[in-house]
Amino acid sequence: MNDLTSTSFATPDGEFHWPVRVYIEDTDAGGIVFYANYLKFMERARTEFVRSLGLNLREGLRDNISYVVAHLDVRYIKSALLDDELTVSVSLAKQGRVYMQFDQKITNKKNELLVTGHVKVACVELCTGKPRPLPESLIAALNARRIA
Amino acid sequence: MNDLTSTSFATPDGEFHWPVRVYIEDTDAGGIVFYANYLKFMERARTEFVRSLGLNLREGLRDNISYVVAHLDVRYIKSALLDDELTVSVSLAKQGRVYMQFDQKITNKKNELLVTGHVKVACVELCTGKPRPLPESLIAALNARRIA
Amino acid sequence: MNDLTSTSFATPDGEFHWPVRVYIEDTDAGGIVFYANYLKFMERARTEFVRSLGLNLREGLRDNISYVVAHLDVRYIKSALLDDELTVSVSLAKQGRVYMQFDQKITNKKNELLVTGHVKVACVELCTGKPRPLPESLIAALNARRIA
Amino acid sequence: MNDLTSTSFATPDGEFHWPVRVYIEDTDAGGIVFYANYLKFMERARTEFVRSLGLNLREGLRDNISYVVAHLDVRYIKSALLDDELTVSVSLAKQGRVYMQFDQKITNKKNELLVTGHVKVACVELCTGKPRPLPESLIAALNARRIA
Repeated sequence: MNDLTSTSFATPDGEFHWPVRVYIEDTDAGGIVFYANYLKFMERARTEFVRSLGLNLREGLRDNISYVVAHLDVRYIKSALLDDELTVSVSLAKQGRVYMQFDQKITNKKNELLVTGHVKVACVELCTGKPRPLPESLIAALNARRIA
Repeated sequence: MNDLTSTSFATPDGEFHWPVRVYIEDTDAGGIVFYANYLKFMERARTEFVRSLGLNLREGLRDNISYVVAHLDVRYIKSALLDDELTVSVSLAKQGRVYMQFDQKITNKKNELLVTGHVKVACVELCTGKPRPLPESLIAALNARRIA
Repeated sequence: MNDLTSTSFATPDGEFHWPVRVYIEDTDAGGIVFYANYLKFMERARTEFVRSLGLNLREGLRDNISYVVAHLDVRYIKSALLDDELTVSVSLAKQGRVYMQFDQKITNKKNELLVTGHVKVACVELCTGKPRPLPESLIAALNARRIA
Repeated sequence: MNDLTSTSFATPDGEFHWPVRVYIEDTDAGGIVFYANYLKFMERARTEFVRSLGLNLREGLRDNISYVVAHLDVRYIKSALLDDELTVSVSLAKQGRVYMQFDQKITNKKNELLVTGHVKVACVELCTGKPRPLPESLIAALNARRIA
């Protein structure tokens, strides 16, 4: 019942989707979602994508592994509004030794495209912030997903 | 599938529950959820409680009706951590002519009590910020719920 | 010129004041500051109060010392609006072995009282979250301030 | 004393600078500023840039004029930390009929470059979200600044 993982789904082409509801906390005095808050939605979806692979961030932090966004390209096409039900997609566009490149989209219930994002995420050592290779477990899980 | 309303539930005593996942956006450099962010979780749960009654905030705004928190009493007992699955409860403790008093609790998966809150929410005119009576539709829905 | 500490001031009774500008990020679709965001303003003022004593939070974290809010009582009297210039006051109401009790007020340029808060902050070990005595350096600085 | 405008400055090449302190609210469990929060810092600086021209956002909203970010390109080079004193620069790279293109940089006290951003901001009607020409008063102020 109280199951936070039940609502995601993957399409045949391997895209991952995550639903997000717009709350008053997300909006601003212009009556729309504040532009920085879409980045929260996109990060939630990336986090759930990684969780769907059987990994979670907190264990990573315990092992001195963290992830930071290195580059961001976001196009805002149409604004989301209070109470909107959004779907945030995640698809792994590229995978390097130390980073992943994600393509993301945010759509509303009417299937209108609101936001597109290209997000480059680097793996770093938590303590130093220095880049480090993606953990083996993550690479294995990404490969397993690709084959499945 | 992509259904944002499927995960709430009500207990026999009429308490409403809403699940919340802790994301990196909610945490701070102390490694825990930032104290103001629990208020977001509590507001999400109140919003979903109202939505479960068949009402939503955006329509209210269109009718010049808004809600503001008038008083807040929050006790922080134990911190929530990244990736935690929380349950936020809402129960209507008191209902006046222009305000509602909610009792709220946040617990984690181990059923540990993390936060308790008493939140007084006043109904106001959106344009002026002046108090106004709770809308009839809300009162009717609250009464219907009490009887059911 | 680019001096972030120049704008605070203390009144004769020892109250500390910190100016805060309301930005679009702080507001919500109701056209006012979102209720949780006043807690950010209050924390900024407490942080600057502590900084004015010659201490800072990051060094504390390095020494395994952190601070968490244990209890919060906030009364919202009037809403702050976009572009408002607010003043947030801090006064130490009580000091225990492991906690400090702050009284805080938020006013606008017209000197209208918008928010009052009573905030109990506990000192904890960063690693465990367990309460620990306030650091000697903080107690000494608080005492020095009281005498001065 | 309690003057929120005293701390900005402009360099000879017309760049505008705004100081930002990093508070605990801005950080995340990775111990650094959360990636979306740099966008808040950049918006604060753009808002103050516009304010330095004698204009403010709230009056715009009253006249049914709002601004939305249409495109964002952000490079994250080095992380900001709790208590850091940052400087956010704003320079108007291009000005169209309905939009402005800003180049922004965030540096720390050691003058290390942390973040660069290219932000395209469109002027819209508040009610409809439809693009509309930049207001005359803004164009006049931008021109006056360029000549001065």
